[in-house]
Amino acid sequence: MALVVVDVMPKPEILDPQGKAITGSLTRLGHQGLSVRQGKRFEIEVTGDITKERLDEIGRIADTLLANTVIETYAVRTEG
Amino acid sequence: MALVVVDVMPKPEILDPQGKAITGSLTRLGHQGLSVRQGKRFEIEVTGDITKERLDEIGRIADTLLANTVIETYAVRTEG
Repeated sequence: MALVVVDVMPKPEILDPQGKAITGSLTRLGHQGLSVRQGKRFEIEVTGDITKERLDEIGRIADTLLANTVIETYAVRTEG
Repeated sequence: MALVVVDVMPKPEILDPQGKAITGSLTRLGHQGLSVRQGKRFEIEVTGDITKERLDEIGRIADTLLANTVIETYAVRTEG
């Protein structure tokens, strides 16, 4: 089993209410100087080898299904 | 600005309904041999240098606030 990771984050210019809420809570709890943005991490277990075709397929999946590219960016990488 | 990433994933023995739904959708769409688990990715911008104390602090934040360690695992790492 090979592992491919897709990270999906809100674009820098997009407001991130969850991240903002966490940042506010951390400040109130005394953790200064930290700014949090929250995104999603998808771990995709691939049966068989990770070929270029397979990575391209997962790239298309990320682009069309996992990320909303109007407001989010994504990155695909193999891991482990 | 330095970046610390906290990845939070459901523990392997925990059901992951979001990941299961995505896996089912991918199979129906003709993407075979992919098994997806969905977690969270937190990007934490740190003002100033990343010291060992700072990383320990973020580790405590991950353990107590960002992850529910009953059902989730987390990993802290510097990036970029």
